[in-house]
Amino acid sequence: MSAGETVHLTLDEVRALAKAGLAKTGLSPDHVDAVAETMVSGERDGCASHGIYRLLVAASSVKSGVVVPDAVPELSEPSPALVRVDGKGGFAQLPFRLGAPLLAEKARKFGIAAMGLNNVVHFAALWPEVEELTRQGLVALAVTPSHAWVAPAGGTKPVFGTNPIAFGWPRSSGEPFIFDFATSAVARGEIELHRRAGKPVPDDWGYNADGHATTVAEEVLSGAMRTFGGHKGSALAAMVELLGGPLIGDMTSLQSIEADGGRGGSPIGGEFIIAIDPAGFVGDLLAEYMKHAEVMFETITGQGARLPSQRRYEARKKSLVQGVEIPAALMRDIEKLLEES
Amino acid sequence: MSAGETVHLTLDEVRALAKAGLAKTGLSPDHVDAVAETMVSGERDGCASHGIYRLLVAASSVKSGVVVPDAVPELSEPSPALVRVDGKGGFAQLPFRLGAPLLAEKARKFGIAAMGLNNVVHFAALWPEVEELTRQGLVALAVTPSHAWVAPAGGTKPVFGTNPIAFGWPRSSGEPFIFDFATSAVARGEIELHRRAGKPVPDDWGYNADGHATTVAEEVLSGAMRTFGGHKGSALAAMVELLGGPLIGDMTSLQSIEADGGRGGSPIGGEFIIAIDPAGFVGDLLAEYMKHAEVMFETITGQGARLPSQRRYEARKKSLVQGVEIPAALMRDIEKLLEES
Repeated sequence: MSAGETVHLTLDEVRALAKAGLAKTGLSPDHVDAVAETMVSGERDGCASHGIYRLLVAASSVKSGVVVPDAVPELSEPSPALVRVDGKGGFAQLPFRLGAPLLAEKARKFGIAAMGLNNVVHFAALWPEVEELTRQGLVALAVTPSHAWVAPAGGTKPVFGTNPIAFGWPRSSGEPFIFDFATSAVARGEIELHRRAGKPVPDDWGYNADGHATTVAEEVLSGAMRTFGGHKGSALAAMVELLGGPLIGDMTSLQSIEADGGRGGSPIGGEFIIAIDPAGFVGDLLAEYMKHAEVMFETITGQGARLPSQRRYEARKKSLVQGVEIPAALMRDIEKLLEES
Repeated sequence: MSAGETVHLTLDEVRALAKAGLAKTGLSPDHVDAVAETMVSGERDGCASHGIYRLLVAASSVKSGVVVPDAVPELSEPSPALVRVDGKGGFAQLPFRLGAPLLAEKARKFGIAAMGLNNVVHFAALWPEVEELTRQGLVALAVTPSHAWVAPAGGTKPVFGTNPIAFGWPRSSGEPFIFDFATSAVARGEIELHRRAGKPVPDDWGYNADGHATTVAEEVLSGAMRTFGGHKGSALAAMVELLGGPLIGDMTSLQSIEADGGRGGSPIGGEFIIAIDPAGFVGDLLAEYMKHAEVMFETITGQGARLPSQRRYEARKKSLVQGVEIPAALMRDIEKLLEES
């Protein structure tokens, strides 16, 4: 989607469009609601790649049989402070919605709790889920493996997914502190954009299939990407695999890409989320300790540095009032989808 | 400590030396035991900077009044799945020993549990604690703030500590998967070594007090270090501050360096540890899912890449049989300490 002609939409129009498009794919109504909401969040926060554009990705996932469109997720409690939701092969959003209230309840009751989403199709960012938990006053950490596309530090063959880590901290005034980043050096979509544009990539983004550094985007996509931050990023990527895979009884990224069998579908597998009650340790002193966190945030922003989600919140503030602009070409693709019989 | 003359010691001799030296500082016997053991672990695993050398650091911390030598840590249970140990200003090792059995018990009972150590003096690595929990079959994650020495991405003034993150995963055969790294670009000790040697540092290690990149080690030490991995490492450093500080009712790195008041002591504050029962989600299928984790490890090592702690384990294997070599100059300093009246 290059710059150029755009179409103006209010966020309600984005929501209506997302719902109509998702319904058209054959997704059951509760999945439509849950998935549409994350597309609205992405578009609202200026994350075009996680916005209404994902409608096309979702439609293709349903059409190719990668996702079960009418999956009915199933909730269980394998241990007192653990929640498990089997997504039965459907999109991840509805299982999260189903399990989040119980996760929050357990975090408040025990001080800390965790949730595993199993057998779900991921195609959204983790920050909307982490933000939802901070809105309920909880501290949250979420990770998910994906497809084996990323080489470990010291190697050149894929083992890890892009393996994002997201964290959220509630703030009494203003928006929560939230980060959500891939442990790969760059997003896979970034390499994809270079491929489409026929542009070379920097030679430290990845390796070709022979294990040599390459500047050809296509070779990185079929070879291996690198982790961010050298051996430290690689160690974190392994942690994400373990927590979001074997720990919760789900697939590693190696297993996920094998299960995909070359269909090129969105990663299927698990997601692991920890929720902590910030009053659990400090009780009545919560407000005082929250102030110390605020001093830290102010020391960051006071020197002109940004907090991780600051850009998103600025976009949000604007789009809630003014709506959003989406590329005309994307709008035409969506209209085509809506007209399909 | 430059290379050169060395003294050979068995690990039992290292232990005896550490205990004698620590006792000499006036540390109470249970603190002596706990602290000595982490020095033995460091020396055994080839981490000289966390080995017997730390005896001099510990002695100086006691002498300068930074640490309470006979602190009696106090255990409490602020929430069903949370353990809190108030270290009363003593070293962190004894509070960890006191709380770890209850943390492990709660992790097995609830599926997940967490521990906050408060008011403790840190001068060791986190991996011995994480490894201890993996030996009990648990998955563990530990973080601790330190002194405000590190600038956030996009800024040049100190906010964060070197803020390590350690993670451990138990393995039925062989040594656990463990990583433990600072979220700063390099260890502070590394810059210190450059300063002593009068060598310039790379210009991406930190900033001088005016906020400019510098190659003068001393200026970085009195200015600000950088985080690893750009804005991602910076986000993680903030997470460590929040979890190991306000969440558990303890100090941020900004507060810790202020409390130090220029004494140059080891960081005082909190440590946050999560323990998870790997059978919590998967129950009887544990062995099967552990195998999937092993496949991932083998795909890493099978392509010639190292697992994070591989070097330590190789050193351990050797030193358990052959003992260790310590610099003769260090041995003389330790003997001097032992002779002091």
